[in-house]
Amino acid sequence: MWLRVSCNLVFDIEIPTPFILMLRARSGAQQWISREVYNINPNVTANEYIDAFGNLCQRVLAPSGLFSIYTEAEAKVSDFSDIAPNAPLVNVENIPDNILCYLLPSRYCESDRFGDLAQAITMNELQGYNQVEAIENWLRHHITYLPGSSDYPISAIEVHQKQQGVCRDLAHLGIALCRSLSIPARMVVGYLHELYPMDMHAWFEAYVGNRWYLFDATQPYKKGGYVAVAYGRDAADVPIFNQFGPAAVPIQHTVIVERLDLL
Amino acid sequence: MWLRVSCNLVFDIEIPTPFILMLRARSGAQQWISREVYNINPNVTANEYIDAFGNLCQRVLAPSGLFSIYTEAEAKVSDFSDIAPNAPLVNVENIPDNILCYLLPSRYCESDRFGDLAQAITMNELQGYNQVEAIENWLRHHITYLPGSSDYPISAIEVHQKQQGVCRDLAHLGIALCRSLSIPARMVVGYLHELYPMDMHAWFEAYVGNRWYLFDATQPYKKGGYVAVAYGRDAADVPIFNQFGPAAVPIQHTVIVERLDLL
Amino acid sequence: MWLRVSCNLVFDIEIPTPFILMLRARSGAQQWISREVYNINPNVTANEYIDAFGNLCQRVLAPSGLFSIYTEAEAKVSDFSDIAPNAPLVNVENIPDNILCYLLPSRYCESDRFGDLAQAITMNELQGYNQVEAIENWLRHHITYLPGSSDYPISAIEVHQKQQGVCRDLAHLGIALCRSLSIPARMVVGYLHELYPMDMHAWFEAYVGNRWYLFDATQPYKKGGYVAVAYGRDAADVPIFNQFGPAAVPIQHTVIVERLDLL
Amino acid sequence: MWLRVSCNLVFDIEIPTPFILMLRARSGAQQWISREVYNINPNVTANEYIDAFGNLCQRVLAPSGLFSIYTEAEAKVSDFSDIAPNAPLVNVENIPDNILCYLLPSRYCESDRFGDLAQAITMNELQGYNQVEAIENWLRHHITYLPGSSDYPISAIEVHQKQQGVCRDLAHLGIALCRSLSIPARMVVGYLHELYPMDMHAWFEAYVGNRWYLFDATQPYKKGGYVAVAYGRDAADVPIFNQFGPAAVPIQHTVIVERLDLL
Repeated sequence: MWLRVSCNLVFDIEIPTPFILMLRARSGAQQWISREVYNINPNVTANEYIDAFGNLCQRVLAPSGLFSIYTEAEAKVSDFSDIAPNAPLVNVENIPDNILCYLLPSRYCESDRFGDLAQAITMNELQGYNQVEAIENWLRHHITYLPGSSDYPISAIEVHQKQQGVCRDLAHLGIALCRSLSIPARMVVGYLHELYPMDMHAWFEAYVGNRWYLFDATQPYKKGGYVAVAYGRDAADVPIFNQFGPAAVPIQHTVIVERLDLL
Repeated sequence: MWLRVSCNLVFDIEIPTPFILMLRARSGAQQWISREVYNINPNVTANEYIDAFGNLCQRVLAPSGLFSIYTEAEAKVSDFSDIAPNAPLVNVENIPDNILCYLLPSRYCESDRFGDLAQAITMNELQGYNQVEAIENWLRHHITYLPGSSDYPISAIEVHQKQQGVCRDLAHLGIALCRSLSIPARMVVGYLHELYPMDMHAWFEAYVGNRWYLFDATQPYKKGGYVAVAYGRDAADVPIFNQFGPAAVPIQHTVIVERLDLL
Repeated sequence: MWLRVSCNLVFDIEIPTPFILMLRARSGAQQWISREVYNINPNVTANEYIDAFGNLCQRVLAPSGLFSIYTEAEAKVSDFSDIAPNAPLVNVENIPDNILCYLLPSRYCESDRFGDLAQAITMNELQGYNQVEAIENWLRHHITYLPGSSDYPISAIEVHQKQQGVCRDLAHLGIALCRSLSIPARMVVGYLHELYPMDMHAWFEAYVGNRWYLFDATQPYKKGGYVAVAYGRDAADVPIFNQFGPAAVPIQHTVIVERLDLL
Repeated sequence: MWLRVSCNLVFDIEIPTPFILMLRARSGAQQWISREVYNINPNVTANEYIDAFGNLCQRVLAPSGLFSIYTEAEAKVSDFSDIAPNAPLVNVENIPDNILCYLLPSRYCESDRFGDLAQAITMNELQGYNQVEAIENWLRHHITYLPGSSDYPISAIEVHQKQQGVCRDLAHLGIALCRSLSIPARMVVGYLHELYPMDMHAWFEAYVGNRWYLFDATQPYKKGGYVAVAYGRDAADVPIFNQFGPAAVPIQHTVIVERLDLL
């Protein structure tokens, strides 16, 4: 399917504030970006760099006053996310070097504390894809998905205690559980068609059967329509905007996802 | 100024052919890309990767038949390229690690053979920016710029012998001369407003006074209106398209650069 | 001073176990490694890779039975760690791209939760080096250094609650406090001359005045004699050995640091 | 086999001269470095960085006067280099991203000019390993190996004209021929047991059957005993020392390779 996705952010800045933005969807095996718009207003000088995870990040110094960021993309994405029942675990010694970092515990995914729970959840499963699917299902039944219920990231341990969370929280717990089984897992931030209520979204990917597969416990079943914008170990790595100095909450934040090929 | 640049390439492919494309202008200190279009037709699966020089490269397997690539960008660029008379040479021991590679000889820039000529050209100049400017002027007077006169890259030695060349050739000789003076120099491929005849363009940058400065011996004086698309050691690193297998010359190749803010 | 440092680890492995080792001190601005020994026994095949922080990591599959790792280095290091009172804060917009990751919260350094405490500790200080020094001093007085008191890493929040910790714990809290002030901070694992009791050590570095400076709240005053082995965001990034599968605690673990130039 | 390899370089420096050194053998799939010595005298401050090809490079500013560099390593290497008759060509679309750069022409390997010759040499061969073996054999018969006959690198075209060369020259021509067939090929600099006359050595590797294989047309048959020190596109990338400023030829240059396990 062809999607047009956009994100509009408006800030009221008190004092000149450095921002790092991570809002550019890139073409890849799963998606093709055929059209992209990226406006910042006022149009201050920006520097783009590539972080350790391959994300394109823009550094700007936002001047005081109204500061807006608008990104839009037209993307061709799959109608269905790939599944691979029984795809095997990749033994640690065979995991590619650049994927090893997704095995380590990270800020919001304390995988070093979830070994027992992960074992219990996946006890009767074949090692690999089926374990991750069992984790995804366990999340669906044990953690209540409450979009909009939280303003800042909490960690997998906290999510597990609260038994509820936003998309980011479910992803964090899923990632922590996977890593505790030596399955590389990473966070993805992006857009999802027909997400309700519409907003930026977060899900996770697990590396089994020698590639990444998408998992999303916030949705009742596996579907397509995802546009990935940024990848990282957890939410600490992939803020769509990261500001430094006095906090400035966006005074406007609009996300739109439209299907183009059915218009 | 605001420019809209586009490049349209059409191939008639005999057998499925792997391509690597390098056609995406990126935002940076010198330019802001506010809008981008990138279409390949038929819309086969593409994988994007980042090469050692920070370029975004797309890998596609073009099927047989007509295959077209269309990229378009709207960019805000400077009206004037920065100049810095007397900016000093950066001593080798102070050149940043990731810039050292631009000191080495490369495929089309045999800097190991140009020490004497470079010394002669820059004899009375302050070390640094002024040396590069002397090289740029020497190129203007000694190498005739003949756009369209060559189909494939030749090396600095060959350019020096022929005493004429296309934009790429002048850049190669300029780079070789700079490097032989221990001044890092790199090739840039992109667009130039009001280039005549219009086509993709190539120029070079030299690292003096702790940053990169633009030089272009094909133009009679320093101007603005450049949109950089790819950076590398020389033309071997920055083909806008690189195909493997039987050669397929584009049957159509259209480049357009329009000024938007004067429309 | 010239130091000879060594670390000997012996494991009794039950089933073949993948290890990632991070035990090779590298030469750098602060230290020169003139001699290095690295033995694993049995001498199974190893693959070395470089992680995102520049550490040399070795991947081995340890066979069952006794498995030993011995590394030794002779290093020339400074007699005194550099200090720089009043060195200024580097504003976020001027921090080099590759250092930005050291501003983000990480597994054991929840910098997103320490803003108020960091402000309180550094209230009257000049921004930059003096803030970090105030943090180092605050740690010395408020967190009791108890070497050997903990087997596994805990996070800055937990350290702050317990008010005591091992070297790693003090570093984690120091790093979290720095980052909450937008000062890049990273963990260093290595050796320290005359550490008592002798063991591998951990400290932190903060980026102020355009370079990294060493801080170590476990020691009563600034000194020299440090040999850095690995750098990362926190302990999650820099385990000297990381094993996957059933836990195998070393049955032998010997660390020696000798001064060579006084022998 | 276990080898002890060493290289001793002594320079008489007129004015302070920046050097980049590339002399550290690293452990990898093919070799294990168990012991390493690295002395520079006088022991000036050095900075180590990792280049785009994964080599560890040391930057030093050599003071005027005698300046010596001594490196020694004890390495376990294979008794036999791996061979793989019939290993298939890796189609361009399946070559890993980070290996694509070894397909491009480079300073001393003008692969864009060798298509016809490479086709002629490999006409009746299975695509892949056998093509490279045919190239290696062709080099043995058509290019006379004359160790010590050249002081500075010449390019594949020049080697082909002269029909003779040093190890580096044969490697350059071999690499150019491979790349013109879309087979990734790279240069390796290192040590070879029983090389006569003993010196640093150069050979090449080709990527077929999804891994790198060693080829060396200077030797009459495939053997073991190689210790790799540096990898690159050609000799421009892998000088064991690269000096900037007035040329200083080593006044002493001693290379030793001893077999340890037979002592």
